[in-house]
Amino acid sequence: MNSTHLPNWLQRCADNTPRKLAISTPEIAWTFAELNLQALQLAQQLAALGIKQGSRVALLASNGVPFVVCVHALIRLGAILVPLNVRLTLEEQLWLLRDVEAMALLSDSTYTERAAAIQQALPTLTRARLQLETATRHVSLHNVTPDQHAPLLDEIDLEATHAIMYTSGTTGIPKGVIITYKMQWWNAVGSALNLGHQGESDCWLLCMPLFHIGGLSILMKNVIYGIRIIVYEKFDAALVNQAIREQGVSIISVVAVMLQRMLAELDASHQRYPSTLRCVLLGGGPAPRPLLEDCASRDIPVVQTYGLTESCSQAVTLSPADALRKLGSAGRPLLPVQLRIVDESVVVGPNQPGVICLKGPSITAGYDHRPDATATTIQDGWLATGDIGYLDEEGYLYVLDRRSDLIISGGENIYPAEIEAALLTHPDVAEAGVCGQSDPQWGQVPIAFVHLHPGSTLTPTELIAYATQHLARYKVPRAIYLTPPLPRNSSGKLLRRELPTLLSRGTQRKSS
Amino acid sequence: MNSTHLPNWLQRCADNTPRKLAISTPEIAWTFAELNLQALQLAQQLAALGIKQGSRVALLASNGVPFVVCVHALIRLGAILVPLNVRLTLEEQLWLLRDVEAMALLSDSTYTERAAAIQQALPTLTRARLQLETATRHVSLHNVTPDQHAPLLDEIDLEATHAIMYTSGTTGIPKGVIITYKMQWWNAVGSALNLGHQGESDCWLLCMPLFHIGGLSILMKNVIYGIRIIVYEKFDAALVNQAIREQGVSIISVVAVMLQRMLAELDASHQRYPSTLRCVLLGGGPAPRPLLEDCASRDIPVVQTYGLTESCSQAVTLSPADALRKLGSAGRPLLPVQLRIVDESVVVGPNQPGVICLKGPSITAGYDHRPDATATTIQDGWLATGDIGYLDEEGYLYVLDRRSDLIISGGENIYPAEIEAALLTHPDVAEAGVCGQSDPQWGQVPIAFVHLHPGSTLTPTELIAYATQHLARYKVPRAIYLTPPLPRNSSGKLLRRELPTLLSRGTQRKSS
Repeated sequence: MNSTHLPNWLQRCADNTPRKLAISTPEIAWTFAELNLQALQLAQQLAALGIKQGSRVALLASNGVPFVVCVHALIRLGAILVPLNVRLTLEEQLWLLRDVEAMALLSDSTYTERAAAIQQALPTLTRARLQLETATRHVSLHNVTPDQHAPLLDEIDLEATHAIMYTSGTTGIPKGVIITYKMQWWNAVGSALNLGHQGESDCWLLCMPLFHIGGLSILMKNVIYGIRIIVYEKFDAALVNQAIREQGVSIISVVAVMLQRMLAELDASHQRYPSTLRCVLLGGGPAPRPLLEDCASRDIPVVQTYGLTESCSQAVTLSPADALRKLGSAGRPLLPVQLRIVDESVVVGPNQPGVICLKGPSITAGYDHRPDATATTIQDGWLATGDIGYLDEEGYLYVLDRRSDLIISGGENIYPAEIEAALLTHPDVAEAGVCGQSDPQWGQVPIAFVHLHPGSTLTPTELIAYATQHLARYKVPRAIYLTPPLPRNSSGKLLRRELPTLLSRGTQRKSS
Repeated sequence: MNSTHLPNWLQRCADNTPRKLAISTPEIAWTFAELNLQALQLAQQLAALGIKQGSRVALLASNGVPFVVCVHALIRLGAILVPLNVRLTLEEQLWLLRDVEAMALLSDSTYTERAAAIQQALPTLTRARLQLETATRHVSLHNVTPDQHAPLLDEIDLEATHAIMYTSGTTGIPKGVIITYKMQWWNAVGSALNLGHQGESDCWLLCMPLFHIGGLSILMKNVIYGIRIIVYEKFDAALVNQAIREQGVSIISVVAVMLQRMLAELDASHQRYPSTLRCVLLGGGPAPRPLLEDCASRDIPVVQTYGLTESCSQAVTLSPADALRKLGSAGRPLLPVQLRIVDESVVVGPNQPGVICLKGPSITAGYDHRPDATATTIQDGWLATGDIGYLDEEGYLYVLDRRSDLIISGGENIYPAEIEAALLTHPDVAEAGVCGQSDPQWGQVPIAFVHLHPGSTLTPTELIAYATQHLARYKVPRAIYLTPPLPRNSSGKLLRRELPTLLSRGTQRKSS
């Protein structure tokens, strides 16, 4: 059995519809022919840096054309993209770069300083700066002469690795999820078979971070479907609503906090969405019921989804036709995906909760150089997500809890174990426990419970300042409570679910 | 690398949209749940016959629900479908059944007699008759008790063989093209990415023979897309036009002769097509330019396609947007397909004619037990179609000639070598040469030039009667001309292209 090779997706779009608009941002509006040309030219520059098939290349850039062109240029070289979460601290980014053994770091002008700091710590790393030249509207590498004879790939090998995307787990140690082209292809196809595909008129608005799978996968849909995308650097409700009204946006991917702000802005400006908006893809954690009811009353076609990095974004979706009948459900698996609920190693029937397990060609085969984590998570092709849910009699998934202790804050996943590990590096901290607290704006925010060594005079304020040095801002606990020893089970495992009960027992507190 | 397994496509439709209409014929209108149940029940009966994974099962049936249910039942068993062209003679069908080593023959009530004659000649063949019970509207096998414990497959292994479909070649000996599920899947996905996919509203009308890939592939689109299909036993312009007007048909597959009749019937009844008809997929050989211009003037969205059994139907399509600008072109390859033109083993540039070569996951990997034919036809993954064409500067394909000597008559492929071989079995025939002649109704019809042994008194009428016993009706030469020795090149190869010049030299003639 041979691996499947497809023609380069962007090249095929440039061949089929060269004059069709491929991507627009506040700065540029490029056809597929233009985007393809930019990618080919940048690929020649990247080749001059020594980047080639299999090279692991970290990318530290904001949402924008430099990021997009870089993704396609790396595909031409067969290099592996490692997108860095721009919100991480220098320390966190250095850990990832060492762990993934990146050979090069590319950054855009927004992150020049951080990139310099990284290179100082990792002097062997090849570094280059992507720039969008304002005069020529051309994305290129600063001060790099292109290699005109670079061997560029005309085909995409579906079995090859496209990207390595880091995600933390219950252990708190981030793992690199291997994302193959096959996963991207099957995810795009599964989504199109579910949501429909209107090649002539579809336009997907992208305001999710490109360093997450939810954003990156839209760049692939752009060239697999041959449809237009609009990319914004940051989410801005007024800009997004304007694009929906005026630029023919037909699909938009959002998380609940974004959708809430969009509706508020819509009300403030006394506007409605046009019928061209055919799908609001709502992911990134459970959606509040009032939000769904509000959207239903306004005839906004919300499609709830459930997915994770390991499933290359959406794996389960709820069609608008079922939105009200199955309110609160994440829906049914996409065609290539199989789903089952497992409790204590047994597949359970309807209405029985258990771990959500997924299988199919859009699901990852494992983690980069983590055979143990891979073996624990994936068995016989079935990925145990760690999330808890159940299927109803009609096979609709209801997600009860993201990985028992996962905190989802504004669409970002936060793993308590990672924060606890950071707090425990402080010499005064004896025990640390982190859990989520409801927040009207972000859904959830992390809070921490800390037991200090005897005699310590450390204050919560000081500990938060310490945490800020080691953790991305969104991971820093919103509040730290000093407590007696933490609740644990007989084998000493921290009982995170009991942490909130400590709040009522009267503890010393300090907000950040 | 593991093989990709997907959930059974029909089962998934039955799970996702149980109450949605899946298929309608003049006799029945079934939901996906009903179609799935019928397939499961029939699979249990087929299992009772000893049909299991890998069994080769010939199917001799007209277009209708017994055929459709049988296809899905065989998928559940992992058995290999061998659809028989119903127009073939008994002799031709027996040859195929022996060649493919079929273990069973299923027929519908239309072909009971022929099936009995086949079994008489091949007594070891298991035979059963499919029937649509008029009372219960239930497809089942006559007099077979279902095996309730039959192991039915829940998944489809994309690498597995779905069907073996016979096609003749330049040698005149039919070869079984191996059609895998992978080919069907990629063809369906490539088509959807090209034509668009409107799951809620699409409806595909099927009036092509199901024993050809053009028909069979629509049965797969039915369950991969989860859309409704309408199946007619025979093409009837008035019925088809009525369905387009009244039943929301959005896509229809036709050959030129069908489309011509549809337009004539449309004019006779003073009707127009509604806007719900979004795609008239026109395949089966070159389309006459006046027909395309007529359709353009009526705003009928004709999508020309080029494909063959080996490419699992359409491989190249011309979008309606390009229909007039590129009149006469077959268009551009579907996303999964790569195309190049090869002349004398060299890939040639724009406007240079040569053999059309195709590569991709929807292209066959070879012929059943014909390693030589496979090696000749497929090299490095590239299938040499034998058809001649060129690409213009924009990469649009123009088909100049189907396999130098192929005759296409009303969408059926006729291979001169096969007819010549049949004529040469007559003891009086010394040489035989066959070519196509233009025909206003069928596009082309075969005619034959025959050189008799000295002293023979055989007449063309007698020879046509003889051919009728050995060849399907559509292959029997419309006229036979008795001639002196046939034109050959220095190595003795018949020069078929020069045959028509014999007509002007005065030959004895007899029409059929």
